[in-house]
Amino acid sequence: MAKPKKTPRPKAETPKGFRDYFGAEVTQRAEMLRKIAGVYHRYGFDALESSGVETVEALGKFLPDVDRPNEGVFAWQEDADADKPGDWLALRYDLTAPLARVYAQHRNDLPTPYRRYAMGPVWRNEKPGPGRFRQFYQCDADTVGAPSVAADAEICAMLADCLEEVGIERGDYIVRVNNRKVLNGVMEVAGLSGDDKEAERGIVLRAIDKLDRLGPEGVRALLGEGRKDDSGDFTDGAGLTDAQADVVMGFMQAKRETGAATVARLRELVDGSVIGMQGADELEMIADLMAAGGYSADRVEIDPSVVRGLGYYTGPVFEAELTFEIKDDKGRVRNFGSVAGGGRYDDLVKRFTGQEVPATGVSIGVDRLLAALHAKGRLTSAAVGPVVVTVMDKTRMAEYQAMVAELRQAGIRAEVYLGNPKNFGNQLKYADRRDSPVAVIAGGDEFDNGVVQIKDLILGAKMAENATLEEWKDRPSQYEVPRADLVAKVLEILELNR
Amino acid sequence: MAKPKKTPRPKAETPKGFRDYFGAEVTQRAEMLRKIAGVYHRYGFDALESSGVETVEALGKFLPDVDRPNEGVFAWQEDADADKPGDWLALRYDLTAPLARVYAQHRNDLPTPYRRYAMGPVWRNEKPGPGRFRQFYQCDADTVGAPSVAADAEICAMLADCLEEVGIERGDYIVRVNNRKVLNGVMEVAGLSGDDKEAERGIVLRAIDKLDRLGPEGVRALLGEGRKDDSGDFTDGAGLTDAQADVVMGFMQAKRETGAATVARLRELVDGSVIGMQGADELEMIADLMAAGGYSADRVEIDPSVVRGLGYYTGPVFEAELTFEIKDDKGRVRNFGSVAGGGRYDDLVKRFTGQEVPATGVSIGVDRLLAALHAKGRLTSAAVGPVVVTVMDKTRMAEYQAMVAELRQAGIRAEVYLGNPKNFGNQLKYADRRDSPVAVIAGGDEFDNGVVQIKDLILGAKMAENATLEEWKDRPSQYEVPRADLVAKVLEILELNR
Repeated sequence: MAKPKKTPRPKAETPKGFRDYFGAEVTQRAEMLRKIAGVYHRYGFDALESSGVETVEALGKFLPDVDRPNEGVFAWQEDADADKPGDWLALRYDLTAPLARVYAQHRNDLPTPYRRYAMGPVWRNEKPGPGRFRQFYQCDADTVGAPSVAADAEICAMLADCLEEVGIERGDYIVRVNNRKVLNGVMEVAGLSGDDKEAERGIVLRAIDKLDRLGPEGVRALLGEGRKDDSGDFTDGAGLTDAQADVVMGFMQAKRETGAATVARLRELVDGSVIGMQGADELEMIADLMAAGGYSADRVEIDPSVVRGLGYYTGPVFEAELTFEIKDDKGRVRNFGSVAGGGRYDDLVKRFTGQEVPATGVSIGVDRLLAALHAKGRLTSAAVGPVVVTVMDKTRMAEYQAMVAELRQAGIRAEVYLGNPKNFGNQLKYADRRDSPVAVIAGGDEFDNGVVQIKDLILGAKMAENATLEEWKDRPSQYEVPRADLVAKVLEILELNR
Repeated sequence: MAKPKKTPRPKAETPKGFRDYFGAEVTQRAEMLRKIAGVYHRYGFDALESSGVETVEALGKFLPDVDRPNEGVFAWQEDADADKPGDWLALRYDLTAPLARVYAQHRNDLPTPYRRYAMGPVWRNEKPGPGRFRQFYQCDADTVGAPSVAADAEICAMLADCLEEVGIERGDYIVRVNNRKVLNGVMEVAGLSGDDKEAERGIVLRAIDKLDRLGPEGVRALLGEGRKDDSGDFTDGAGLTDAQADVVMGFMQAKRETGAATVARLRELVDGSVIGMQGADELEMIADLMAAGGYSADRVEIDPSVVRGLGYYTGPVFEAELTFEIKDDKGRVRNFGSVAGGGRYDDLVKRFTGQEVPATGVSIGVDRLLAALHAKGRLTSAAVGPVVVTVMDKTRMAEYQAMVAELRQAGIRAEVYLGNPKNFGNQLKYADRRDSPVAVIAGGDEFDNGVVQIKDLILGAKMAENATLEEWKDRPSQYEVPRADLVAKVLEILELNR
């Protein structure tokens, strides 16, 4: 008789493109987000937490870089009701689309302007790659219903404050500001403003959005005849004349020594365009507001070479760049680069309500900023290991428990060893594995004499590395103290090793 | 010619069973979770954050109350690869199933025992009801790989500490402990231990798990012939004799004045059963460890009437109950009830690895505990409104911005009014809507004279309610101060209204 087939064991694996975060990875991120939330709060922003799940209908197509609606989201259909098919639901892919839904849904109960911040995971159904995950954190702040450019300026100032609050020093970052309206003015001046020029404008927008990747020459090619990429594929260009392309290129290269000079140069470029002049005025206003708030140009500057998102936003565009150098994977020195971006977009809730509502906001790249803090050594090791009270005599568990309770009540991270206590070596290996600063040891002799042994594991580790160092000559790595002095002695050792 | 049909506008709605959380709802929960994480950390637990998405294969069937695998989860299938169908993915429905997967996947890199805590949203594909949502928070701590009952005792102590840390006072809570092994001993004594009695044991387990809902008489009926419920449906009973049912009921009613007396009573009930005696010994050990750690019986007690989850767990079972009274929806006074529960389960990773790994843990009901803190008035209003700097003269925006920057740099939550400034009444309505404590007012006259007007909105509101109160007689609700004294005066008013 054939044996019944066994069900194979399930694989213990994260789904492709997802990962687990352990210990300090979790607490350091939480701490960074808490500091950022504190700054957002100080600026008058209120917390909003929507759920991870939205209807596909409400999410709609909002991702700037994706052509087909709902491409790139995780979606599923609800079970059918008696009389109609189930709704399609999806995981949110950013925090802006849910904000649009929330504002449209609750607009009568929300203050105007509505300043909100949100932080949490978002999901993208994309091909995972090295360092590219399908769930990651976003951390946004947006002001809805404020047409004034003061709202944009405020967000630039807040971004600078956030970076300093989490540990990026002044001089190590710059918030750079540009304006889509100036670009629109440039297009007008270049003769690209007619209804019949929509295709060309689209190509121009896509081309300048690629400045980071293709460089000025690549963009120039796309403004003109077109460009063949490394794989041999040819991308059609906008077909601009040299004179037209010069104006567009001039916009991206308009940065001068001072903000005033830059704005003056932009005014030259958009001379005759109402929208262009308005954009230049807005940039000047932002520069004035920054100066009035004490944010000098070494923190927030006008820089028309900021092009990322220029095709998506409708007014001011901003980006925070970290300017210190790091080595990349191949050992080359380069600037750390962008950690946050945002701008003004005026069609936030239009698809729900038909009304245009102005909005401006910023999104901080949580993982990028954490990586920057790591590179700068700004992450305090929140992962201080626990004091481990070892178990020499299983029948004395209540006494070990009393020790650990005393330590915890004094605010010290501490635990009793809870594995099999037979092999004492394993207990010390465990303490080592946990990065324990101190081990407490008490067996029959100690209990008889009313004492405990306290082992300084950090000093022990240092001495094992280099036993001759003078400074440790007079410091023992193990102490016998009266039981009553347990907490005081542990505190003393923790203090010494700080 | 027919007009082209317009696409209807999407509905701005949360999916059924989901909701949005605003302002203080978000920050108060975050603050409570931060405090609990602090206690978990002090006990030596490390943070773990897995993603919201798992493979259906890894999740398996782990929900205790659900018969069909994957019933109750949100699931979808990945796109097919060239050669094979896509994996089924699902949103996690709790934090225990992901822990099992993580431990099985990373067990060679994790310390043993592995103490981990996790907090975050989970999703259940269930029919939503009043107060029942399909996304909610869990907040768990578990110790994996520690067979010792000291691990269970530690979690009971930690649970008590967590409740006090978030603001539940001693005397307002009790952690109650029971043990599945004692119940197994009771079954043995009642002659229900044979392989042929599995069906009866199953009915007994399900019956006692319903004690909260059905009361002792209902359970007694299910232990015997069976029970007809209010709708007329009949549930078959276990068919125990009166003598057998008496032993089982005796177990649930074994609680005596002291822990020692309760354990003595349990020893009588399970006399002759090895497993039952072992369970009684474990309860005694837990009581001893609690006493040694300073956790007296008014904080953690042995109580065999704790039956929730007894059918699921394999050893100690615990539950935290809040003992203060509240009024329910119908105005009846009752105890607040359970806010956390847990116990020992020894098959955590067996389905992945084939190995039994002992584990014990606790899950705190985040929403229940928040509701309790709300009922006790323990939630500080983290929702302090911002100081609003009003806009009397649009062209002076830079000067208003400078004021608000000064206030923020002094740590004061503050903002410039960013809506349309034309109607000054709307600005004060906005400040009211935001619960602003103070409004700052400056127009042409003030700028000319180098002063600002500072309006105490909290006092103003109080005076509007009751203008005769003596204590406010000498306090004006509006001050004119030199511009240089802006920050000092605002601080003074905030202090007065604290």
